[in-house]
Amino acid sequence: MPRGKLILVGLGPGAPDQMTGRARQALAEAQVVVGYAKYLDLAGGLIAGKEVIRKGMTQEVDRCRAACQEARQGKTVALVSSGDSGVYGMAALAYELLLASGWRPGAEIDVEVVPGITALSACASLVGAPLGHDFCAISLSDLLTPWPVIARRLEAAARGDFVFALYNPSSGRRRGQLLAARAILLCQRRPDTPVAIVSDAYREGQAVALSTLDHLAACAVGMLSTVLIGNSNSFVAAGRMITPRGYDRKYAGLTGAVKAGERPGRSLDMGLAGFKACVRRHLDQAQGPGLEAVARHFDVPVAEILAAIAEAHGGAGGYAAEAVIPGREAEILQAARGWGRVRVGVESGNGARCELPIDGQDLDLRGDHLCLACGEARLAIDWRRVGHAWFLRHGRGQREAWFVDRAGDALCTLSLDPTDTDPIAHFERAWTHLAIARREP
Amino acid sequence: MPRGKLILVGLGPGAPDQMTGRARQALAEAQVVVGYAKYLDLAGGLIAGKEVIRKGMTQEVDRCRAACQEARQGKTVALVSSGDSGVYGMAALAYELLLASGWRPGAEIDVEVVPGITALSACASLVGAPLGHDFCAISLSDLLTPWPVIARRLEAAARGDFVFALYNPSSGRRRGQLLAARAILLCQRRPDTPVAIVSDAYREGQAVALSTLDHLAACAVGMLSTVLIGNSNSFVAAGRMITPRGYDRKYAGLTGAVKAGERPGRSLDMGLAGFKACVRRHLDQAQGPGLEAVARHFDVPVAEILAAIAEAHGGAGGYAAEAVIPGREAEILQAARGWGRVRVGVESGNGARCELPIDGQDLDLRGDHLCLACGEARLAIDWRRVGHAWFLRHGRGQREAWFVDRAGDALCTLSLDPTDTDPIAHFERAWTHLAIARREP
Repeated sequence: MPRGKLILVGLGPGAPDQMTGRARQALAEAQVVVGYAKYLDLAGGLIAGKEVIRKGMTQEVDRCRAACQEARQGKTVALVSSGDSGVYGMAALAYELLLASGWRPGAEIDVEVVPGITALSACASLVGAPLGHDFCAISLSDLLTPWPVIARRLEAAARGDFVFALYNPSSGRRRGQLLAARAILLCQRRPDTPVAIVSDAYREGQAVALSTLDHLAACAVGMLSTVLIGNSNSFVAAGRMITPRGYDRKYAGLTGAVKAGERPGRSLDMGLAGFKACVRRHLDQAQGPGLEAVARHFDVPVAEILAAIAEAHGGAGGYAAEAVIPGREAEILQAARGWGRVRVGVESGNGARCELPIDGQDLDLRGDHLCLACGEARLAIDWRRVGHAWFLRHGRGQREAWFVDRAGDALCTLSLDPTDTDPIAHFERAWTHLAIARREP
Repeated sequence: MPRGKLILVGLGPGAPDQMTGRARQALAEAQVVVGYAKYLDLAGGLIAGKEVIRKGMTQEVDRCRAACQEARQGKTVALVSSGDSGVYGMAALAYELLLASGWRPGAEIDVEVVPGITALSACASLVGAPLGHDFCAISLSDLLTPWPVIARRLEAAARGDFVFALYNPSSGRRRGQLLAARAILLCQRRPDTPVAIVSDAYREGQAVALSTLDHLAACAVGMLSTVLIGNSNSFVAAGRMITPRGYDRKYAGLTGAVKAGERPGRSLDMGLAGFKACVRRHLDQAQGPGLEAVARHFDVPVAEILAAIAEAHGGAGGYAAEAVIPGREAEILQAARGWGRVRVGVESGNGARCELPIDGQDLDLRGDHLCLACGEARLAIDWRRVGHAWFLRHGRGQREAWFVDRAGDALCTLSLDPTDTDPIAHFERAWTHLAIARREP
């Protein structure tokens, strides 16, 4: 029996000239072609005269099983998806089924994935250059994905200022998902954020509409539409939606002339290697805002600001900091027994700030929690969330310990009374013992 | 003079048979071909005999300007990118330059974007089906993007459990970005998360390596590599990396048989329309955990739990809730003057919880902040962050008002003393006046 082959072919958006050469060739090679009826129509003349297995829209498992069965009989089988087989197409399911049946490379049948132009590329090409910077693809279909998972992804990607490509945005039975997605995005993105709706890209009936996030609710969006939503820098001009890559950060007026402080072919001043120096310059100039405000200014976790201060021998903006030796964070609580009166500060990240003055003696871990009381007020901190800690000096005798979570966001701070000299000496001794020894320059 | 045309051609990964028909045709049409020298080599024989303008790697602005200039002379010009011109390619910059010079559709020159197979599709096809569910594309290059922007995107997408396609992960001068990205992802993703590194996809020297997030630091990753990082469900088997689409949520053992409670072709039980009922079933069964714990269980903002309770006439799990009329949230503070002793609760989202008992009379807005004191303890809440509010009843006489931010995360709660009947009557009156009137069934 000849060796079977399963080719997972991405047909691209639809027009034959948007298929790759390899996809055409794969269809030509195939003895059997399996797919959703509508996608088989896209392949048109390329599959004339072949054995064709047509299946309904939600019969993906059936389609895959039929294709695998044919391949096991020694045939070359093309299992087609529109767009890219690896992007919301049949490739993952086919591999899952194959692996569940014990398939291994070299055994039984060969498997090849032939990539195709996925909807995000096809649709973007018709509206300008909306994917000019980092983007995400999210399917709004809740036929296989719980809505909370989809909602969390929408919220996270909105927070990260990604361009969105929404696949399966709407269907006859699913109208609410797109409205719910819009509501989630509007929590973090401007109402006039550009939106492009592309339907039937590179097929008969192709339609492109530009709108805004605010007006998305009124737009015609169907099963064959893809919705592209801009990031905070996207704009529409002359009927085109563009997301700049950021050349104007480096080049003045897009003339090719490099801006002061930047070098062609090198990382930005605010790149990985340079941005901590930028943070220090900001601290030196701004003189005054707290670390949390500076962290918000740069949109980084506060640990990055602490690290930027710690990195420079002279500190920055009147601040000096050093990191606590990893794993010894809890010893700060023991040291704090000698710190006298301590203010414990907690910031919620969404606008609440709490301060409890307590005696350093009371900084006791009970199980996993640091439980504090001040009169009838209570504060409990889940100590398992502590990632790192820092010592900080600033202003007129201010001494603080900062505890941050693993992501670098502030969990709590301990501040000493700046007028009390004995505790300050205690604090300095703890710093000497528990901070990472600074390398001499 | 003939009309000029600028065609932004995506060449795909490299192999001629991975180009689309339209891309080949565009190169054939072009009188002038402009591009980075290395990409022009990919086009090989397709551009033989044409006027070719070769530029260096970081001379993108020069390339675009040269291409526009040629097109303005009435020529058909192909400006080539590898992969897809719209994805970290030349399309956005070309449009920016054209628009800055006053270009409008129909005027002067025509512009066409010809999509190509972008690296994420090409690379995924070589390792299995790693992009089987929602994914994001992030460039680690900080030549044009500040590192904090890149870091925030990495963190947000990790939080959203996206599959990652990292473009420009590393170069001779940029080695630290990939390590920093790994550290950010490890805050939220398992060390054994599958990683695929694909270098020179569909070109000479093609290399595919499978690894894990933990071991990524030791992998060979270069300028021509793309790094694919799995989500929490991705797995490696038989040398293939797969991210399941989720068929096993609906179909038992991938047999095609639909699981109990699910319907083929319809949204999941946990879909948009159904998940609030699932939340109520959970509340009914779990009996006990607070709303914040339930919100964490479903990984949704607490407002979704409150909405699920409010949606059912009988409430759920002993809870009853109703939404406050939008815009009237601050009136709750006035009503609370009659609530007697009130506990104000704030949860930080990263493990800190603070409770302040105060007198309802003291719930005064000062400017934008709700400033509270209990002895020497202080709590300040930024009132501008309030999005919605809810009334809640539960257990033995528990009465609460919940304030959430625009994303639906808890900002603070006000809890009454359950033993005090007069304040409870006050609370009930406020509920009647300020809650959205429930439609009778």
